[in-house]
Amino acid sequence: MGISVEELQLAARNHALPLEMLREPITPAGLHYLLIHFDIPAVDADSYRLAIDGLVERPVELSLADLQARPAVTLPVTLECAGNGRALLEPRWQSQPWLTEAVGTAEWTGTPLRPLLEDAGISSSAVEVVFTGLDRGVQGDIEHNYARSLSLEDALRDEVLVVYAMNGAPLLPQHGFPVRLIVPGWYGMTHVKWLRSITVVDSPFLGWQQDYGYKLRQSEDDDGAAPVTRMLPRSLMVPPGIPVFFGRGRVLQAGPCELVGRAWSGWAPVVRVEVSTDGGESWADAALDADAPAFAWRGWRFSWDAPVGEHVLMCRATDGAGNVQPLEAEWNLEGYCNNGVQRVNVAVS
Amino acid sequence: MGISVEELQLAARNHALPLEMLREPITPAGLHYLLIHFDIPAVDADSYRLAIDGLVERPVELSLADLQARPAVTLPVTLECAGNGRALLEPRWQSQPWLTEAVGTAEWTGTPLRPLLEDAGISSSAVEVVFTGLDRGVQGDIEHNYARSLSLEDALRDEVLVVYAMNGAPLLPQHGFPVRLIVPGWYGMTHVKWLRSITVVDSPFLGWQQDYGYKLRQSEDDDGAAPVTRMLPRSLMVPPGIPVFFGRGRVLQAGPCELVGRAWSGWAPVVRVEVSTDGGESWADAALDADAPAFAWRGWRFSWDAPVGEHVLMCRATDGAGNVQPLEAEWNLEGYCNNGVQRVNVAVS
Repeated sequence: MGISVEELQLAARNHALPLEMLREPITPAGLHYLLIHFDIPAVDADSYRLAIDGLVERPVELSLADLQARPAVTLPVTLECAGNGRALLEPRWQSQPWLTEAVGTAEWTGTPLRPLLEDAGISSSAVEVVFTGLDRGVQGDIEHNYARSLSLEDALRDEVLVVYAMNGAPLLPQHGFPVRLIVPGWYGMTHVKWLRSITVVDSPFLGWQQDYGYKLRQSEDDDGAAPVTRMLPRSLMVPPGIPVFFGRGRVLQAGPCELVGRAWSGWAPVVRVEVSTDGGESWADAALDADAPAFAWRGWRFSWDAPVGEHVLMCRATDGAGNVQPLEAEWNLEGYCNNGVQRVNVAVS
Repeated sequence: MGISVEELQLAARNHALPLEMLREPITPAGLHYLLIHFDIPAVDADSYRLAIDGLVERPVELSLADLQARPAVTLPVTLECAGNGRALLEPRWQSQPWLTEAVGTAEWTGTPLRPLLEDAGISSSAVEVVFTGLDRGVQGDIEHNYARSLSLEDALRDEVLVVYAMNGAPLLPQHGFPVRLIVPGWYGMTHVKWLRSITVVDSPFLGWQQDYGYKLRQSEDDDGAAPVTRMLPRSLMVPPGIPVFFGRGRVLQAGPCELVGRAWSGWAPVVRVEVSTDGGESWADAALDADAPAFAWRGWRFSWDAPVGEHVLMCRATDGAGNVQPLEAEWNLEGYCNNGVQRVNVAVS
């Protein structure tokens, strides 16, 4: 493996979900994964303004109170970092070295984006909408504020929200206080935090995070690479038993054991989860929770009569669009979208 | 460096403080450092009981409501992991690979320990008090619940608290919900989370985390090694300017810049912070915040007229007991108490 000090610096600041907390349908404060490209900005809520500008008839600047006075929607949404699983790839791109745990689910409260844009009056020449954060730094040798765009069609989807609360409380500083974007179903880079402006434009946005970042390249000169968009199906389990401090192996008593976990996909709700308790030799269906949330993970459980010995536990998800989680994902240069199955080593005695 | 996958697994679950959040005197929820040996237990607050037992005249089991009905104290306390700085040592012990950021300060609310023990009636044969958590796992090849002891004298100090709230809210699951110990001034291993029992004993506690763990060894057969106790003095600064994503270098415009940070010691309040802007060639005193909290970090600031060029910024703390933070700490096998000074690389243009 040989993680570098630069990777470790990122791993220290960008928190992962401790896997046992998959037991909670809504991730508690401080345990949701974080990926923060630059620094967490200090934002004064009273003077904060969100600009809606560019190719609109009536540009506006909205205060936090203005946003809170609009119709409110609360939606449970699973977010996963596009780089989740990167550290398991070989060779491995030098960036945030995620293993499997860059995920979390919160109840986000905000106001739908579409009426905000419609009230501002979208120009007939509009092609994309650019979302810019207050966080600023250097990446790809370019100093910039973090910014991402969506096609006008994606931006106008009903479920896209401009949010100011998470699990019933104001956004935490690290989750975009006071206001961030939520685009249910998409990988984490889309949900721009510390949102400063929403800008309607008439040509594809060429900011570094959009035009260069988050592409599925096979090599550095792969110019036609597809962009990262929606989350591929993935399932994770709560490691059963108790842990060994170093190595995180699991120790379990022989006998009946209920394996539990959660699965999600950005393409359609999860319709199937399979479990293997023999390292992938055989698979059996897990029982799914009754509700299949549109944009949040779905719980599953599987009864296992754990025999004495060493075992490798695995799980894999299938979504309603027919996407099946692979044993090993296809490699790409920057290590995006690695939804290969989790492997949990258990010693049963 | 070459961090192993086992170290990375720990770095993913054990969150560090993003350094820019040193700007806050009280660390916001979810940004305080975490070191969790095993798994975060799921605890039902209604059925939770804290046992006070062992060599006491009247053993009791207290509910959360019982504890909350007792006199309450709120105290700002800085906690730092004993392994902070471990990853900067060479050779490096295989454990949680902290850089410099395993610290945080919260306002902890609870009830003093001493009256709890006195109400239970401490036996005249008492020597130590053992604090046992609900978290269980394997370390040092031994399956155990996390447990640590204090001498009776240390346990009876006025500032030792059994706490149930952090920053005015119930403890988060990862910080020991529903009840944990706080021993102001001591490194993090002392503040036992998910507290199950407080047991008075008449001989030194020989649990693994006490008898083997947290010792300042020079080699594996160093049997007389001193235990880790109180926090050594340390100062950290908020890295100025804006970051480079990979490498966390800082980019800053030339001209006046206020450097800010915080410093702490478990031996006495901090009385001096010095800053170097030339990689340690020269040092000058920073201005300290007026208040010198007994058990929380002290803010400092330093005016710097940043000249064009590459610079290494450093800071070092001195406490009221005369302890001075060293440029490089003494090496020990498991990498504890590394309070060597932080170095921040800045490119000014």
